[in-house]
Amino acid sequence: MKKNIVIVGLGLIGGSLAKAFQKYSECSVVGIDRDKSVLKAALEIGAIDKIGTDDDIRSADVLYLCLYPQADIDFVTAHLSLIRPGCLVTDTCGIKSAICSKLPQIAAENGFSFVGGHPMAGKEQNGFSASDADLFLGASYLIVPCGAPAQAVDLLKAIAVELGFGGTVVTTPEHHDSMIAFTSQLPHVLACAYVMSPRCPEHNGYSAGSYRDVSRVANINETLWTELFIDNKTHLTEELDTLIGHITEIKDAVARSDAETLRSLLRQGRLVKERLGE
Amino acid sequence: MKKNIVIVGLGLIGGSLAKAFQKYSECSVVGIDRDKSVLKAALEIGAIDKIGTDDDIRSADVLYLCLYPQADIDFVTAHLSLIRPGCLVTDTCGIKSAICSKLPQIAAENGFSFVGGHPMAGKEQNGFSASDADLFLGASYLIVPCGAPAQAVDLLKAIAVELGFGGTVVTTPEHHDSMIAFTSQLPHVLACAYVMSPRCPEHNGYSAGSYRDVSRVANINETLWTELFIDNKTHLTEELDTLIGHITEIKDAVARSDAETLRSLLRQGRLVKERLGE
Repeated sequence: MKKNIVIVGLGLIGGSLAKAFQKYSECSVVGIDRDKSVLKAALEIGAIDKIGTDDDIRSADVLYLCLYPQADIDFVTAHLSLIRPGCLVTDTCGIKSAICSKLPQIAAENGFSFVGGHPMAGKEQNGFSASDADLFLGASYLIVPCGAPAQAVDLLKAIAVELGFGGTVVTTPEHHDSMIAFTSQLPHVLACAYVMSPRCPEHNGYSAGSYRDVSRVANINETLWTELFIDNKTHLTEELDTLIGHITEIKDAVARSDAETLRSLLRQGRLVKERLGE
Repeated sequence: MKKNIVIVGLGLIGGSLAKAFQKYSECSVVGIDRDKSVLKAALEIGAIDKIGTDDDIRSADVLYLCLYPQADIDFVTAHLSLIRPGCLVTDTCGIKSAICSKLPQIAAENGFSFVGGHPMAGKEQNGFSASDADLFLGASYLIVPCGAPAQAVDLLKAIAVELGFGGTVVTTPEHHDSMIAFTSQLPHVLACAYVMSPRCPEHNGYSAGSYRDVSRVANINETLWTELFIDNKTHLTEELDTLIGHITEIKDAVARSDAETLRSLLRQGRLVKERLGE
């Protein structure tokens, strides 16, 4: 397809989207970023066709918000007069309730569409320099319509297929945020908490894959994730309470040398994985 | 080198050692296992040269114990009369204090050497069918001499180089067990506790690398790990208390919407990883 794509924020996700559009579609790609050196680099390597102006926003078919949650909302509010009726505005944030409680209403009042989006892909590096046209290959793309017309949702799905996503899942903000608290936010909390152990700096020589896997995402962008965690406070604290409860059960069984209980708890873990066929 | 190697227990580790000796050394490899079908399979694919007899134990230069911790001790006790003076007995257990409080003394009383060993490699599958000649390539090999002669330690180091290990680290049972509680046991507890969330069975479509990495080792051998955890009770419960404390700090900051504290906690995690250059 040929569409005018505007990407706001050329970090890891926005930069990867730009590169994927260039590699896998015939769309034109315009980039907006507060960092001029990023825009220059993106232009030089052909990740974007041009640096965005007000006119580019006016002629956008799809506008991707790839900033932090509140900054996405602020960008739309600040550029309302430029977003034409019929434009599809979408985001790429890791939480949806905070976004979807604001942008669908603003969109409805101003004659454009808003559909929430969340590409389930990432890296332990940040920024445009880490972006990759193939970041999304095979990944799941979560779509949160928030009452938008089916046509807008279908366009996002079609784009996802073109960019190489493995599939799309349509869900509600509430369900999205409860699942993401478990699948994504919890591992990030765990990674940070794990590497705070006084043993961590001495791990070299004593560690292998288990250490590497749990600690991987501790290399976190703390400003972004602080906002994501607090925006998803209810679900995340519920998951953390559940997790602390299960760790404590295992710990208590170890402390009591209660082999039978411990074996039964570990068996539960194994059975979950086996039933999932993983 | 050409040595008579006897491997007791052809599971993931014992089977991989057998295959590595065949692939990378000129040693003869004899296998002992209570499961006759495993012995037959190992013989058929050439992982062992023959199925072990009492005579093979008598002529062993190095005897690798690749059973569970208590079973390793029981095997030595039951076969004391067959182990010749000069034989080097070693193990591959994930804990060392429980082993090293028994076997060095038994060895000294009976004229052979015992050196504790722990190849830092594994897989989320178990058993001979998952074993792999290349499992140890680049991995760290932990050696716990427990007072054995330098000659015995040097032999184990030389074998480790020949089999493709990335390096050897010589340490004490106490230090070994405190480090392993953090680098290996904690991730296994975490993986099991993590997948116990009611959200886990629905993760598909909502998950990516973070989920996969934290949950990977939940596919656990609960009988083996129950023994390993309880044998390392003091260090493991200390690590678990530390971890629960750090998770709780993060959770409390989220619950209070205390962005400053949360950012500072996550930043600690990032800095640990950055300082380690990972």
